[in-house]
Amino acid sequence: MSRRLEINEVSPRDGLQMERNFVPTESKIAFINALSACGFARIEVTSYTSPKAIPTLADAEAVMAGIERAAGVKYTALVPNLRGMERAVGGRPDEINLVMSASETHNRANLRMTRAQSLATLQEVIRAAEGAGLPCNVSLSASFGCPFDGEVDANEVISLASSLADSGAAGITVCDTTGMAYPTQVASLCERLQQAVPGLPLTIHLHNTRGMGLANALAAFDTGIERFDGASGGLGGCPYAPGASGNVSTEELVHMFAAMGHDTGVELDSLIAVVHSMSDLVGRPVFSQLAEAGPRLRRFAPPAWLVEKFPQ
Amino acid sequence: MSRRLEINEVSPRDGLQMERNFVPTESKIAFINALSACGFARIEVTSYTSPKAIPTLADAEAVMAGIERAAGVKYTALVPNLRGMERAVGGRPDEINLVMSASETHNRANLRMTRAQSLATLQEVIRAAEGAGLPCNVSLSASFGCPFDGEVDANEVISLASSLADSGAAGITVCDTTGMAYPTQVASLCERLQQAVPGLPLTIHLHNTRGMGLANALAAFDTGIERFDGASGGLGGCPYAPGASGNVSTEELVHMFAAMGHDTGVELDSLIAVVHSMSDLVGRPVFSQLAEAGPRLRRFAPPAWLVEKFPQ
Repeated sequence: MSRRLEINEVSPRDGLQMERNFVPTESKIAFINALSACGFARIEVTSYTSPKAIPTLADAEAVMAGIERAAGVKYTALVPNLRGMERAVGGRPDEINLVMSASETHNRANLRMTRAQSLATLQEVIRAAEGAGLPCNVSLSASFGCPFDGEVDANEVISLASSLADSGAAGITVCDTTGMAYPTQVASLCERLQQAVPGLPLTIHLHNTRGMGLANALAAFDTGIERFDGASGGLGGCPYAPGASGNVSTEELVHMFAAMGHDTGVELDSLIAVVHSMSDLVGRPVFSQLAEAGPRLRRFAPPAWLVEKFPQ
Repeated sequence: MSRRLEINEVSPRDGLQMERNFVPTESKIAFINALSACGFARIEVTSYTSPKAIPTLADAEAVMAGIERAAGVKYTALVPNLRGMERAVGGRPDEINLVMSASETHNRANLRMTRAQSLATLQEVIRAAEGAGLPCNVSLSASFGCPFDGEVDANEVISLASSLADSGAAGITVCDTTGMAYPTQVASLCERLQQAVPGLPLTIHLHNTRGMGLANALAAFDTGIERFDGASGGLGGCPYAPGASGNVSTEELVHMFAAMGHDTGVELDSLIAVVHSMSDLVGRPVFSQLAEAGPRLRRFAPPAWLVEKFPQ
């Protein structure tokens, strides 16, 4: 009954990207090295986007060159286009992550291209990556709803995933970018995708914007999904509304699945120690419910009066 | 496929009880009247405990007398013992809620009695309530784990529930008082309880201490549970660590089940408006992820540059 899950830690890229403060390169490297020791299947290290567009990750080359690589961990990087792909090759990531939106307006807003243009770009990048021997996963943003367009048609998500699989994508991540997914929707899309692209590794990327992060993870898990994105400390939301809109926090994902008897590969106590260091890392308070409360079986000593009142 | 759920709003009692500030009686009454307009099945109005033990609810009589009762809403009150029962009768609640812990040490710490003493007390109160024509629900605290004793044996929860049912309890609420429950544990206990006390209404009371509140609600729902406690604004935890350990928030419960197509009876927009008033009510910031983010289909206008870049 126990299943082996693969956790992809995205805080170094998806989290730090959104932070107000530039995290010094050495601190990023130390953070990623500490995460490496926790036992993740994958760590998304950085993004080869234009330093002008995302100045917080302008040090992609230095970070990729500086980290120590742990056996068993795949180090991935986000690549937006062919130019990014050329930069990435020098950094020797184990895998590349590409991104486009399932929603037309969200794609235009986020990537300044139509979905058709994005699809063509990604197909080009996948071909180039094949030449370099690098597998490409594709993250489909806004797969469960769009803040501009509202509902996103599951058929369009499936059609994009199929096109990308046909073009050589090594995996698909369905992303609930703005926390609009709900459990039965997650279950339905995950089931349909597993039928539409059988054998293609599927990952789910959830946000906790409306409190449903772990409920949605459970719904995906129940359909057979075994790969989960998480951001330690729940990073990735707007830094001005702590707790409001971040990624589902890796420590809460790991804690829940471990309590249920599954093997995430991640050592929870080590991860909680990393989370406790994150406020210093990003220069603002990072609040994690789980890191605050501790694992479920954390024990407290009964108060002294209780021992007096009920001796024995 | 759509199911009708019963939501029991506990913020007026379980929430306000834990607050640092005394909420003025008139404000409590206005809060409860606003909740009444949202469509709850039940509202836990107050507690007839000793004003010395819980000064924040010292105005139980005035609150019960002052509220306007909406058709279709059952107004309940917590009663700790026979003395509380005598006070409660004058307030004409529709139902009484009693409480004891499934864990021995938690019961001693919280109620200053052994479980055996509590059980005897509750049986006495249930008999007195029968005389007054009042149905008694019993909340079993720490049913999924105890901060002092660790794991709680599900057999003991079932045995207590059976004893209480035999003694005339009108319903049982299984409570994850300190947020230790995880989904498969919730599913297992809910299934076993439904078999052990068939026909007895079961409610689940969850906390979000470790992020699993809605995941556990989903697990309970999947076994057939249709009654849920919730506290608007996620009240009920420690007021000094906002978001850390409160009850599962009613607005997030209602939002999730409504998105899944179920009928909670609760009008979400009205409830969100109430939540927005709660920081003023309790005199400290009340943070609700859902009230902050809005319902999942909340739409945003695309930025102006986007409309210029992609006319049509």
